[in-house]
Amino acid sequence: DLRLLFDQFMKKCEDGSWKRLPSYKHIFSKNFQEFQTLYLDPSLVKGEERAQLFTRSFENGLGFEYVMFYNDAEKRVLCFLQVGPHLQGAPGFVHGGAIATMMDSTTGTCACRAGGIAMTANLNINFKRPIPLSSVVVIDSQLDRVEGRKLFVSCNVRSVDENTLHSEASALFIKLDPDKSLRKKS
Amino acid sequence: DLRLLFDQFMKKCEDGSWKRLPSYKHIFSKNFQEFQTLYLDPSLVKGEERAQLFTRSFENGLGFEYVMFYNDAEKRVLCFLQVGPHLQGAPGFVHGGAIATMMDSTTGTCACRAGGIAMTANLNINFKRPIPLSSVVVIDSQLDRVEGRKLFVSCNVRSVDENTLHSEASALFIKLDPDKSLRKKS
Repeated sequence: DLRLLFDQFMKKCEDGSWKRLPSYKHIFSKNFQEFQTLYLDPSLVKGEERAQLFTRSFENGLGFEYVMFYNDAEKRVLCFLQVGPHLQGAPGFVHGGAIATMMDSTTGTCACRAGGIAMTANLNINFKRPIPLSSVVVIDSQLDRVEGRKLFVSCNVRSVDENTLHSEASALFIKLDPDKSLRKKS
Repeated sequence: DLRLLFDQFMKKCEDGSWKRLPSYKHIFSKNFQEFQTLYLDPSLVKGEERAQLFTRSFENGLGFEYVMFYNDAEKRVLCFLQVGPHLQGAPGFVHGGAIATMMDSTTGTCACRAGGIAMTANLNINFKRPIPLSSVVVIDSQLDRVEGRKLFVSCNVRSVDENTLHSEASALFIKLDPDKSLRKKS
């Protein structure tokens, strides 16, 4: 399922409407540096050489396996996700927190692509149908509107055949202000 | 910090007002069995021997290190959490999804202790101050009210000294109905 979806969207990338987003190490190298230079008071952060992005910190196949695509004209990010066995909540099903994690990541990617570096201020999730472990789902997120530094993004999680709506969420992101470090804000 | 809090609450357990909740393997053995017997259509769940609880699937110290205490009179669960380096979102800070995960787990434990087996229907989180990686925080959750099968639980995440409010959330849980399996519901 994941491979089929991937191939299908790689084709859509050919006309330039969709763009495959690079995985962790590449996508964040620029954003990470910018974040650290512009927004971060170094005294806030303890030396932590073992730091790893939460969604990429599992061994192959056990946690989050995903790829994201971005459509700039629609301000939309699609994430194809296979949920591994280490994401269990209730027996046989994915933990609500793992769903929240990928909704936060997908809406966050959408917000940052469309509006620049931003952090989650609110995430409001309705869990409708539990997701069986090891299944593949599609997370579809879209920038709805912008008010000043506020970015409003909505999102849903569906089965690959689109017949099952697993979860819906609305998210609010705040664009970071280069004049204010995180320390100054607190 | 984690050790100090732990010792302090272990003392509070002596008069019976607070109770330390056993860690994963014990707490879930009974609930897991009950869940599987009463609610689960076996055809829904693929054989998955590698399944692990999401919040206990990291190696020591890298992910979620936590202990929970329950106060039955107050219908309240406290969770003391140390956030490991594999929970990173923005550089140096905890991923919003990791915060959501522990809020879901803590409010879920509170709901299940107070009202029986239940699943998350809504989780609405306000992220106020980012949490630096490797810090210890306190998640305080409380059952606010019950309406039929609906359990309303609120929750906040604070620094150990209580001076910083990192996040707040409200959660809605639905008690499972033994007459309806998850398949019949969908």
